[in-house]
Amino acid sequence: MPEYHVAPLENLVDKFESLPGIGHKSAQRAAYHLLNLSDEEAFSFAEAISEAKKKIRYCKVCCNLTDDELCPVCKDDSRDRSIICVVEDSRDVFALERTNEFNITYHVLHGAISPLSGVGPDQLRIKELLARVNSDEVKEVIMATNPTVEGEATAMYVSRLLKPLGIKVTRLAYGIPVGGDLEYADEITLSRAIEGRREL
Amino acid sequence: MPEYHVAPLENLVDKFESLPGIGHKSAQRAAYHLLNLSDEEAFSFAEAISEAKKKIRYCKVCCNLTDDELCPVCKDDSRDRSIICVVEDSRDVFALERTNEFNITYHVLHGAISPLSGVGPDQLRIKELLARVNSDEVKEVIMATNPTVEGEATAMYVSRLLKPLGIKVTRLAYGIPVGGDLEYADEITLSRAIEGRREL
Repeated sequence: MPEYHVAPLENLVDKFESLPGIGHKSAQRAAYHLLNLSDEEAFSFAEAISEAKKKIRYCKVCCNLTDDELCPVCKDDSRDRSIICVVEDSRDVFALERTNEFNITYHVLHGAISPLSGVGPDQLRIKELLARVNSDEVKEVIMATNPTVEGEATAMYVSRLLKPLGIKVTRLAYGIPVGGDLEYADEITLSRAIEGRREL
Repeated sequence: MPEYHVAPLENLVDKFESLPGIGHKSAQRAAYHLLNLSDEEAFSFAEAISEAKKKIRYCKVCCNLTDDELCPVCKDDSRDRSIICVVEDSRDVFALERTNEFNITYHVLHGAISPLSGVGPDQLRIKELLARVNSDEVKEVIMATNPTVEGEATAMYVSRLLKPLGIKVTRLAYGIPVGGDLEYADEITLSRAIEGRREL
């Protein structure tokens, strides 16, 4: 709309629209909502962005996001350092931690090998993983990358690097999700679930 | 998760989650996306919020959002000032301007009368509308509030204030939306569409 142009407002809407999963209407709603907040609340939103951007960095050990030298998991002495769970993204660590069942450590690759998007092994935190495996007393590496083409390729690539070092490399089980419905499961998942069947 | 706590990150996620229409997952995605941006891009996002909040104010005449004394519509000399279209929200002005058909002026009430949410006529920009009607040569006021209980109540309330001043007060037509499907139209809309039928 060239006739109706309020630059700071449009700029703000554009910013929100640049976020993943937020379309034009949601971006507008967010921007108007911010303008309706008190000055203090709106500025604290802006401050939260700068603050997070300034303070958050990668954990020295596992490359997870943290505001300290080490992330809370790597700081935790009770963790079993002989098992490293390798994930693509920091959010995956949060998801796995929510299970509250495994007292293991993690390694965040920050992506997956994807030639189409121009992401090769060098852009991932694989060197850091190898260094860790060489120095710590690691017995097992669980490849918990996503069950996608890229995640699989990454899991295969990393496992080929680790196996010669005498490390046990495992992969998450495939199967039907708990609470799901067989009727709606896709064929590949179903055949993987049958392949991976276990005795009761 | 008390064990895994990165304060600046959680604070940022909370901020995004406080926006309308954004749930926890979307807020997480947005926060991680911001952390993956360059410093410059992330800070410019924060800056866009502060900037909009500092610069955007209400137009002196129509109470629409603007970064100047007057909004672009009120600044525009070619507009027909004898017709005021009254809307609840600035976004409604944008929607109406997109029709590109009406060369009229607007008045933004910034809400609708809603006793349940504690919004009475005094919280809306009705006084400003009355002042405008009294001073300008206004012939018609189009009530373009939403077709909801609150929007209707507001339209009725404002029209009762304006009619004694000899102003023609009109309301948007109800009917079936263009491109819609009769089968899926609700009964109230359909009966309003028949009531408001026009000769071909």
